[in-house]
Amino acid sequence: MDIKQASPDQLIEFEQQLSAEYYELQAQNLSLNLTRGKPSAEQLTLSDALDGILNGNYQEETTDTRNYGGLRGIMGARQLGADLMGTDVENTMAAGNSSLSLMYMVQLNQYLYGCCGEASAWKHLTAPKMLCPVPGYDRHFSISENLGIEMINVPMTNQGPDMDEVEHLLQSDDEIIGMWCVPKYSNPTGTVYSDETVDRIAALGKIAHPSFRVMWDNAYAVHDLVAEAPILANITERCKAHGTEDSVWQFASTSKITFAGAGVSFLHSSAENMGNFEQLLGVTTIGADKVNQLRTTQLIPDMQAMYLHMQKHRKILAPKFDIVLSHLANDLGHDFAKWTKPQGGYFVSLDVKQGLAKTVVELADACGVKLTSAGAPFPYGKDPDDTNIRIAPSFPPLQELEQAMKVLTTCVKLATVRQLLVDKS
Amino acid sequence: MDIKQASPDQLIEFEQQLSAEYYELQAQNLSLNLTRGKPSAEQLTLSDALDGILNGNYQEETTDTRNYGGLRGIMGARQLGADLMGTDVENTMAAGNSSLSLMYMVQLNQYLYGCCGEASAWKHLTAPKMLCPVPGYDRHFSISENLGIEMINVPMTNQGPDMDEVEHLLQSDDEIIGMWCVPKYSNPTGTVYSDETVDRIAALGKIAHPSFRVMWDNAYAVHDLVAEAPILANITERCKAHGTEDSVWQFASTSKITFAGAGVSFLHSSAENMGNFEQLLGVTTIGADKVNQLRTTQLIPDMQAMYLHMQKHRKILAPKFDIVLSHLANDLGHDFAKWTKPQGGYFVSLDVKQGLAKTVVELADACGVKLTSAGAPFPYGKDPDDTNIRIAPSFPPLQELEQAMKVLTTCVKLATVRQLLVDKS
Repeated sequence: MDIKQASPDQLIEFEQQLSAEYYELQAQNLSLNLTRGKPSAEQLTLSDALDGILNGNYQEETTDTRNYGGLRGIMGARQLGADLMGTDVENTMAAGNSSLSLMYMVQLNQYLYGCCGEASAWKHLTAPKMLCPVPGYDRHFSISENLGIEMINVPMTNQGPDMDEVEHLLQSDDEIIGMWCVPKYSNPTGTVYSDETVDRIAALGKIAHPSFRVMWDNAYAVHDLVAEAPILANITERCKAHGTEDSVWQFASTSKITFAGAGVSFLHSSAENMGNFEQLLGVTTIGADKVNQLRTTQLIPDMQAMYLHMQKHRKILAPKFDIVLSHLANDLGHDFAKWTKPQGGYFVSLDVKQGLAKTVVELADACGVKLTSAGAPFPYGKDPDDTNIRIAPSFPPLQELEQAMKVLTTCVKLATVRQLLVDKS
Repeated sequence: MDIKQASPDQLIEFEQQLSAEYYELQAQNLSLNLTRGKPSAEQLTLSDALDGILNGNYQEETTDTRNYGGLRGIMGARQLGADLMGTDVENTMAAGNSSLSLMYMVQLNQYLYGCCGEASAWKHLTAPKMLCPVPGYDRHFSISENLGIEMINVPMTNQGPDMDEVEHLLQSDDEIIGMWCVPKYSNPTGTVYSDETVDRIAALGKIAHPSFRVMWDNAYAVHDLVAEAPILANITERCKAHGTEDSVWQFASTSKITFAGAGVSFLHSSAENMGNFEQLLGVTTIGADKVNQLRTTQLIPDMQAMYLHMQKHRKILAPKFDIVLSHLANDLGHDFAKWTKPQGGYFVSLDVKQGLAKTVVELADACGVKLTSAGAPFPYGKDPDDTNIRIAPSFPPLQELEQAMKVLTTCVKLATVRQLLVDKS
């Protein structure tokens, strides 16, 4: 049925039919969860060899990984991080289990102490602002909000952030001090930034505030769902070409490669940025867990091993994305919503009709299916159109995912038809 | 020879003899290091079973330790921390490999956001100040200095910080917002705070600024060097008695129990403080490495296992402290210096004659023995009397320690005699 052409009577009948389906699903007392991008137990098991992998040898060349020291991490882990991000090992750090912590500390350092002398600290600005491509990653936005940095929404296109808008904003406000980016399989849209977008982002350092910094969170660098995966342009090289090496901080981690809660995080920036950051980092820690870094490099010694390992993740993840996408196509169709078809990453981004995202999330919740809060992928948790729903298919088993998608699509249809009825009344 | 009674000729002769000894030592081209409190390889090996200890079982009750989540850590690790610190498990957190990071984040939280609403943030005070018992731990002082908090020296007595002075200072300045404490085997003096001192510290919350917080770094809670070890009074209980539970943050870790760089840290405070802190912590991380927490609790399941494990450390460490103390007693005697005789911890604190600490450290350095910089155990790296030298005997093998102590005592004697010659000329 084409719902836009449907008569009021047809809509009423359809609403009754959908309501009945909804109450049937509700009677099943489901308890399903599509909220966060957590790997499944099956994926985690791919790295179970980590415990015991050292065979009693805790040494990396001259470093006893068990002891204190080494703020930049062990060389093998730094090399792995550099290969993962496409950066030089010299200015690449291997750190603890949380790249989010590195991001917070980098932002804090620039907020409290500045990139280039105390006067450059963001706290001295009247209204420091961060550009936030939306929808994006809620935990990025929480860091900015926590530091009292104003967030400005920038629309995502299928090439990455709308760069005309970004450049325009930078030229019209001289207190924009950064931009959040997930350049590959962007959270939640799955967008891979185009070569032109990467190049234009690398060039921003030439027009922006001197302490402007791109937070380049390459969280899904090798997290492909397809065999012929898209290739992200190398921003380090583009920055070198533009002479803007200071303008980008790069992050990655093995959280969704080995163990989600016990991986290794990586950081790269220019020599000057790294030196500046380590002045703060060295006050807060003697160094990260080097034993876990050694374990990680034993499990994944190089990028060839990395790709083989990630193929195993893909075999587990790809069928889950297929379920999500086939339910959206078969149950909904494009009368009710549009959605992304990512080639990698952890999410499908679903856009329902304007003003319906919250309603759909509430309906699903009342039917035993937890979804990420509507609005979460936006600064301050506010989706201006109330349209976006993030679907995280990785954690639940296949059968639960089937059930959850059945509930979700029923809720989308029900909410949409009810809205149409209200509009027509 | 009693150098105070020596004639100028006797002193000249003594100086020549010591110089000859010094040059002889220098000719050996030593390269020894007594700088930091690092466990030796032999100590670290006591915990080598950690890697592989899980036998493929990463589950703790209902928690898959491999995955994301759980800001307070796994229950077994929290229980171990609570037992170690003498706190309730409910308000005890098990975190990552660095208790120093926890300390920084706790201080940062109170600096930026305050303990009790935004108005209580330390950044709003004109001149927030931290009391620093001296000599103390340089990394504590670096945190305060980094946040721009003024540090006030408080003398250490053999009962702990001079509490008359602490109470007097608190009554005369209403912007004192905290005090650093290492209550057991204090770094570097080895002092164990007396029961009265612990009680008076617990009572400070009644007279201090509402956001006054004691930073109770119980780093050496079980690090005894003697069989009949002193017992530290339980500050949680004393705070309960005084109704001052909000005034103390407690820290501990397994860094000097298992692996120095790959241990588990612990944090305890009142329910209100913990809730407040987690608002910041939850922005900066999804949680600490729970796999490593599980490993740690497998190696050390309870306090009985803990004490057995620490006895093995003691067997390695005690002979090293014996070497240090016998060299000080035999080579120096109390004409030249005084020093502490700790019953636990990682340091011996040596006080040479006023104005000589820097000279001694320089002489030793030129003779191939690295010591902690003179002044390091004081805020801003400034020892007002230039008298204190921290000796860290844990890391070097016994024979190297013998050599290093021979150099150190020779340098102390040489510097002292040269000073006497200048004084008498």
